[in-house]
Amino acid sequence: MTMGFVSIVGAGPGDPDLLTRRAIQRLETADVVFYDALVAPETLRLAPRAQRFSVGKRAGRHAVSQARIHHLLIGAARRGKHVVRLKGGDPFVLGRGGEEVLALRLAGVPVEVVPGVTSATAAPAFAGIPVTHRGLASAFLVVSGHAEESFRAVLEPLAPHTATIVVLMGVATRRALAGLLVARGWRSSTPVAMVFDASTPREIAWFGTLAELAAAPLDTPADAAGTLVIGDVVSLASVMARAPVRAKAMATAYQSR
Amino acid sequence: MTMGFVSIVGAGPGDPDLLTRRAIQRLETADVVFYDALVAPETLRLAPRAQRFSVGKRAGRHAVSQARIHHLLIGAARRGKHVVRLKGGDPFVLGRGGEEVLALRLAGVPVEVVPGVTSATAAPAFAGIPVTHRGLASAFLVVSGHAEESFRAVLEPLAPHTATIVVLMGVATRRALAGLLVARGWRSSTPVAMVFDASTPREIAWFGTLAELAAAPLDTPADAAGTLVIGDVVSLASVMARAPVRAKAMATAYQSR
Repeated sequence: MTMGFVSIVGAGPGDPDLLTRRAIQRLETADVVFYDALVAPETLRLAPRAQRFSVGKRAGRHAVSQARIHHLLIGAARRGKHVVRLKGGDPFVLGRGGEEVLALRLAGVPVEVVPGVTSATAAPAFAGIPVTHRGLASAFLVVSGHAEESFRAVLEPLAPHTATIVVLMGVATRRALAGLLVARGWRSSTPVAMVFDASTPREIAWFGTLAELAAAPLDTPADAAGTLVIGDVVSLASVMARAPVRAKAMATAYQSR
Repeated sequence: MTMGFVSIVGAGPGDPDLLTRRAIQRLETADVVFYDALVAPETLRLAPRAQRFSVGKRAGRHAVSQARIHHLLIGAARRGKHVVRLKGGDPFVLGRGGEEVLALRLAGVPVEVVPGVTSATAAPAFAGIPVTHRGLASAFLVVSGHAEESFRAVLEPLAPHTATIVVLMGVATRRALAGLLVARGWRSSTPVAMVFDASTPREIAWFGTLAELAAAPLDTPADAAGTLVIGDVVSLASVMARAPVRAKAMATAYQSR
């Protein structure tokens, strides 16, 4: 049987209009799509002829193990299929895309990566925050908030206020994160934003400070896919974006979802 | 006269197939496009009905000042035009997009931002390098290499080997950068890649170490738009990508262009 191939495709932050032309083309011609929980239903409709399988995990609930995902991708490609592995944001930004490419290469399966718009920059942008801005930040650091020991190793030795910090998967651990930064010397008045469901009709943002982030009993869903942005660039949002939504309004909005 | 509006659009790393669907739609309906030097001719052809103006700068040669760009955007919008400001990569990643949004807001001109695929993650990806990878890097830092005093302020206080470093506009200053990192405690054997013209038919990558980066008299064009990647994730490229091209091959390839 002819060998198929795998396209590891970044789906961007959520809105299907932020898919790249190549991502859309790969979905249109795919035989099989394995997708993450964060991928929108409208995006999946762009793959009408494909069999579609959710292998997504969200906020720690693993639907399918990483090893099993590798097995599924390799198996489908060996049956001659054009396989799309559709991942939220960009496949190589905290998305375990590298592991999937390695597994496929080692199995002798042809694989390509289609980069996507990462939520690390797009979620702040939709909230009116440029991650870099002349005079405020000439660098930004993207870090996973998923495991405390892992962001601690990165952020503890980081000198305060040298770069904008963007945290993906950090909603659940935000108090530990804020506490660590303040202990490390960041001003407790440092502006912070949390952006949820960026680019979608459900998008909402919370604005506050590091002190408020550490203290705030925010009424957010435990599995909310939020992006945290920490640094002086956050203060630009009030000028750049539509009127920012503050904590109380957000809690209300979430309750009414 | 009716007020027009401005779309500040990320053009991605180079290949028009990496434009988002929204970027393509904005180009198709634009009356005027102001574009940077790094935007490909094939991309500009997606705006057939627009007047197109280069306002690009490349490697320090400013074609048009930032203040003049603001003036042009505001003027065209006030004449009722749908203006596209087309920028390489993502508008908010070291692209001065924030300054343009602020200038437009202050002038009362409606403005939107269309995020793009940033070269900071896509250029490494095309060279087979995931900026994060389980066990190797759970964070990455993106910094401008344009001005030495600016990257020095970010990198000098950064603890060695805590995150992958991605440097945009750092080809010209790469020796100072490598020297700084080694002096700061980074292993001189740390793997480094420089990726040029990522995603285009002219794409090429150099692989070496921090020590080699500091020493190498690379035969690259002074204005080459290269992305530097520094950290252990670079070592994955030999497995992930097509066979990497080493320094000598690159010099030859550049000479034959």
